[in-house]
Amino acid sequence: MSDALRLRIFAELDSVVLIDPHTHINALQPASSTLADILGYHYYTELAHSAGMPKEQVEEAGLDPKEKCGRLFANLAPLQNTVQYSWFLELAQAFFGFQGDRISADNWEPLYDAACAKQASEDWAGQVLEQSKLQAVFLTNEFDDPLEGFDTAVYIPCLRTDDLVFHLARPDVRERLEDVSGVSVGDAGSLRAALGKRFEHFKSKGAKACAISLPPDFSPARISPGRADTAIQEIGKRGTDAALSHQQALSQFVFWTLAEFCTEFHLPFDLMIGVNRRVYEAGVYQGQDLYDSRVSLIQYRELFNAFPQVTFPVSVLASVTNQELTSYAWIFPNVVTQGHWWYSNTPAFIERDLSARLEVVPQTKQIGYYSDMYKLEFALPKFRMYKRVLAKVLAERFVVDRGWSEERAIALGKCVLRENVDRVFGLGKGYAVEDLLFA
Amino acid sequence: MSDALRLRIFAELDSVVLIDPHTHINALQPASSTLADILGYHYYTELAHSAGMPKEQVEEAGLDPKEKCGRLFANLAPLQNTVQYSWFLELAQAFFGFQGDRISADNWEPLYDAACAKQASEDWAGQVLEQSKLQAVFLTNEFDDPLEGFDTAVYIPCLRTDDLVFHLARPDVRERLEDVSGVSVGDAGSLRAALGKRFEHFKSKGAKACAISLPPDFSPARISPGRADTAIQEIGKRGTDAALSHQQALSQFVFWTLAEFCTEFHLPFDLMIGVNRRVYEAGVYQGQDLYDSRVSLIQYRELFNAFPQVTFPVSVLASVTNQELTSYAWIFPNVVTQGHWWYSNTPAFIERDLSARLEVVPQTKQIGYYSDMYKLEFALPKFRMYKRVLAKVLAERFVVDRGWSEERAIALGKCVLRENVDRVFGLGKGYAVEDLLFA
Amino acid sequence: MSDALRLRIFAELDSVVLIDPHTHINALQPASSTLADILGYHYYTELAHSAGMPKEQVEEAGLDPKEKCGRLFANLAPLQNTVQYSWFLELAQAFFGFQGDRISADNWEPLYDAACAKQASEDWAGQVLEQSKLQAVFLTNEFDDPLEGFDTAVYIPCLRTDDLVFHLARPDVRERLEDVSGVSVGDAGSLRAALGKRFEHFKSKGAKACAISLPPDFSPARISPGRADTAIQEIGKRGTDAALSHQQALSQFVFWTLAEFCTEFHLPFDLMIGVNRRVYEAGVYQGQDLYDSRVSLIQYRELFNAFPQVTFPVSVLASVTNQELTSYAWIFPNVVTQGHWWYSNTPAFIERDLSARLEVVPQTKQIGYYSDMYKLEFALPKFRMYKRVLAKVLAERFVVDRGWSEERAIALGKCVLRENVDRVFGLGKGYAVEDLLFA
Repeated sequence: MSDALRLRIFAELDSVVLIDPHTHINALQPASSTLADILGYHYYTELAHSAGMPKEQVEEAGLDPKEKCGRLFANLAPLQNTVQYSWFLELAQAFFGFQGDRISADNWEPLYDAACAKQASEDWAGQVLEQSKLQAVFLTNEFDDPLEGFDTAVYIPCLRTDDLVFHLARPDVRERLEDVSGVSVGDAGSLRAALGKRFEHFKSKGAKACAISLPPDFSPARISPGRADTAIQEIGKRGTDAALSHQQALSQFVFWTLAEFCTEFHLPFDLMIGVNRRVYEAGVYQGQDLYDSRVSLIQYRELFNAFPQVTFPVSVLASVTNQELTSYAWIFPNVVTQGHWWYSNTPAFIERDLSARLEVVPQTKQIGYYSDMYKLEFALPKFRMYKRVLAKVLAERFVVDRGWSEERAIALGKCVLRENVDRVFGLGKGYAVEDLLFA
Repeated sequence: MSDALRLRIFAELDSVVLIDPHTHINALQPASSTLADILGYHYYTELAHSAGMPKEQVEEAGLDPKEKCGRLFANLAPLQNTVQYSWFLELAQAFFGFQGDRISADNWEPLYDAACAKQASEDWAGQVLEQSKLQAVFLTNEFDDPLEGFDTAVYIPCLRTDDLVFHLARPDVRERLEDVSGVSVGDAGSLRAALGKRFEHFKSKGAKACAISLPPDFSPARISPGRADTAIQEIGKRGTDAALSHQQALSQFVFWTLAEFCTEFHLPFDLMIGVNRRVYEAGVYQGQDLYDSRVSLIQYRELFNAFPQVTFPVSVLASVTNQELTSYAWIFPNVVTQGHWWYSNTPAFIERDLSARLEVVPQTKQIGYYSDMYKLEFALPKFRMYKRVLAKVLAERFVVDRGWSEERAIALGKCVLRENVDRVFGLGKGYAVEDLLFA
Repeated sequence: MSDALRLRIFAELDSVVLIDPHTHINALQPASSTLADILGYHYYTELAHSAGMPKEQVEEAGLDPKEKCGRLFANLAPLQNTVQYSWFLELAQAFFGFQGDRISADNWEPLYDAACAKQASEDWAGQVLEQSKLQAVFLTNEFDDPLEGFDTAVYIPCLRTDDLVFHLARPDVRERLEDVSGVSVGDAGSLRAALGKRFEHFKSKGAKACAISLPPDFSPARISPGRADTAIQEIGKRGTDAALSHQQALSQFVFWTLAEFCTEFHLPFDLMIGVNRRVYEAGVYQGQDLYDSRVSLIQYRELFNAFPQVTFPVSVLASVTNQELTSYAWIFPNVVTQGHWWYSNTPAFIERDLSARLEVVPQTKQIGYYSDMYKLEFALPKFRMYKRVLAKVLAERFVVDRGWSEERAIALGKCVLRENVDRVFGLGKGYAVEDLLFA
């Protein structure tokens, strides 16, 4: 029974029109131009490199896209087991008519060419959106992004704040902020003013969230303006050579100030907790980051208490942190669980983490999934992976284990898959709590 | 096959008469008086609050019980997915004749009134015990509880020691101890004497355990009497303003002394490891505590080695600590696994943690479950939740995966569900190891 | 469908001829002489002790093997649920013709005698190898092992380095090193020379790996020769009374030097991360070690970056570290996942950890399993336990969840079970990446 049940639930979930609440899409170039834009995704380059392909082969300067694909396809055999490989297969089948379940030296060229033909069509991005049932996607925009030249109803701006919080000691980052804000940053007050300008800009362009990724050792704390002044002066003099204590104080001051602006501008603040950057320094582009799973949400205690008006959709990098996330979302009104991030974005961890969330976090406070994609083609296979796991968990843990009706299970699935995106980020009509009442 | 098998195993487990080894029942008022005693359980108030209900609405002073229920029922829709909501449904069906699987504005009043009629009967608590197949429940008594006015064969005293270990710096706690023991506490010797009086009292009233909940950063250690004298003097002078080092030394001294008395009085010492109190300070009553999952049983190494004669039934708050618990119970003769606590008391975590325990911890050293309840009505749905998971794990991991007979799987289930409670806490006839031999 | 599918996959996996990449076999006495060699395995003595059997009964000096077995069998009832008990049953059935699924006072003596008859045959070890389909097993040899008197094609030497890294402050260990290397160790240079001699010796005898078990707080780091000189001088003077900082510097220096020799001698370096020794000091032999699960592979960041030419097959003791292991093996070309170690070597944890690895680590970089055994008879039940879980995961997560063909799933299983052992340790013909291409 269970297999057929899963398929029926999946079919229902797969019919839902989606809004993807976190991506790295470039709104000016949202879909792929060649298959190299797909295979160049760090999941493929880093896995191929990990399995033995030299970095120099992957990243040779000026490499022709087709040649790059040829090289990568020649190195994918060791990855055939991975779920990332299955993403590629599924999108190649869905968008480019690929047949079969293995890419090899024999069949990649026709695929490459077939893809080129599709990608050349005038509204390729629009076709991908439609076929993927994607109504809109959130972007992740640098703070100095002009946010122009695209439809912000489809490509929803989101203020990425990593550089502001962690790299303001770099002269180039400070200059970018001063240039774009028109404010000369010399103390806490002027820094706050500059940041405020960015919130005004983003809000005026329809931004629906602020976002940041955070290392495992970061603990938000309120910093006094005086302490911030000192830190800013030291960093103004010495840049990244300033004492670590000053750089940390500045990070905390900026982070706290961002949360204050999120209150003022009514923006949810996406926290993506747990990444260590550049752990494997000889790795390929975007394939160098790892983590230390010894992180706790207790580090965010002061923040969650201080900003009851700000909604924090929280992602955690390590699955061992998921129970804490689940518990904090169960207790704190302003903490929402969000998606399955990066190293936890695989079926085994999604199944585990999702099961834990679905049974204790209020159904209105769970954002099921985001794709984190760089090219639109990935939403389809990634969301389908998630929806298959969601269907499995709903079938096994709600219909079978808890005696729910199939309809009720599907309603819960749709709630976390779509309705909560609207609810949490204040999109479209939104959903009233009444919508939750199953028949 | 598996579904029918699970049901058969569940039916067998559900027929077992239970002793609940850890609750917060008030023996003088064990069952609910109105449905507000049920819905006032912190799981409902904190989840409703987390989903958006203002604390002031939940906790308005002098609120009529029926009005309180009306307000809470109006805010339960976001919680319909939670397992806690299912506890409510199951007990409302079992005890109050509720039909259907959703509580709403349309049907809560008849339920409330039907409940009142039942609750008004003279021996409502007795009826709940009988219907729940509960032979007895452990209490969690403050150290100054007179333990009078109830049948200690049904309501088994247990000495709760949180205040003694962690709040003796508070003048009110010291006074309570001095009052009840008749000992003036001025140094290590007199403190020990005062504590000993409490053990005598509890033991004379039939207490079967000592219990404490512990924060993640606590590490038991032996403190010299001289060091304890200093700490007690400082705290006598400054109370909770005394240096943290003195307060910590006192906590460790009291904790160690309690373990010594557990040896002398032959009492198991329940350790409930991992809670941080008042993390969300604006939360509802009992809905403010969370945790830091970065805790290790290595912190208890010295304790477990020093007290080989004391049995320590250990609960851990975070599921990530469960493997350590499993391994420590596998190695240390005096460590016993106990139940699934609080944030880990949900099907997904129980299934995971239970599966790990059942396959490596000697079957005599696992106490399956306790309800942690405040009102008797909760034993039925909570134990049933556990028994369903237990049946699932026995069916899937023992009968299917390991080829066990159904009878043998059921025998293991009964062992952890009931027999070990008798065995570990020395109740009734106890069970000989020979009882374990399956046919 | 799923149950039959699992059985078919298991049958295929069970037909594979194995090389066991990590054991503690004594090549001069590889199989059991009496059943006491089997029941004396620490899993049985420590579990029986944990369940109540006094250490003195287990470890009485000069105890007759049959008497020892009699005592242990009388104390196994509490362990009947454990997977370790099932290992015993399965090997007793396979090798000694035992019938039934319970060992008791009634039937252990005939089993003991039947075993003796088998064990007395001239080539008992050879029979066990053949029946277990074991082509070869890795040993774990002390650094001063002469490696003589056995066939190194069947019993493959592996240099165990725990003593060198963690106990060189002990005069007896230094003397052993000086004796066997013929080098007087007085500074970094001479220590390096002595270590190099050992690598030459092991390599000349066909060693295929270097191995070490590491405590949770160890962080490899490069130590300058000057700092190492100081540490070696201090330790030469004071032995284990030398300051901890010197002992730690020496540990790090030796460890780093070993990694350098692994580069030079082309040997993989097995890292077994996470054990605390002698946590339960009153425990039985080999039943005293536990752990602190708060460990992170970020501690190995510098090592993994510094030695790109050394393959590190990594085992972690705690399952909560498995996701990090999975992620590090996904990113670092020189990190390979290896087996399921000790407290994580039970079906529940294997299923969890294996599922996570199979879906993201390149299939060429996963060594499925090793037995860790002390006597050859244990390979059969331990590998079968693993193969059953592997068959379950392949059936459920690849054939059912991901739509793989049965053949493809079996091919993946064989890859991690056997082919990667050859590939990673450079054995026999090895397997080309082309072998991975499923039909």
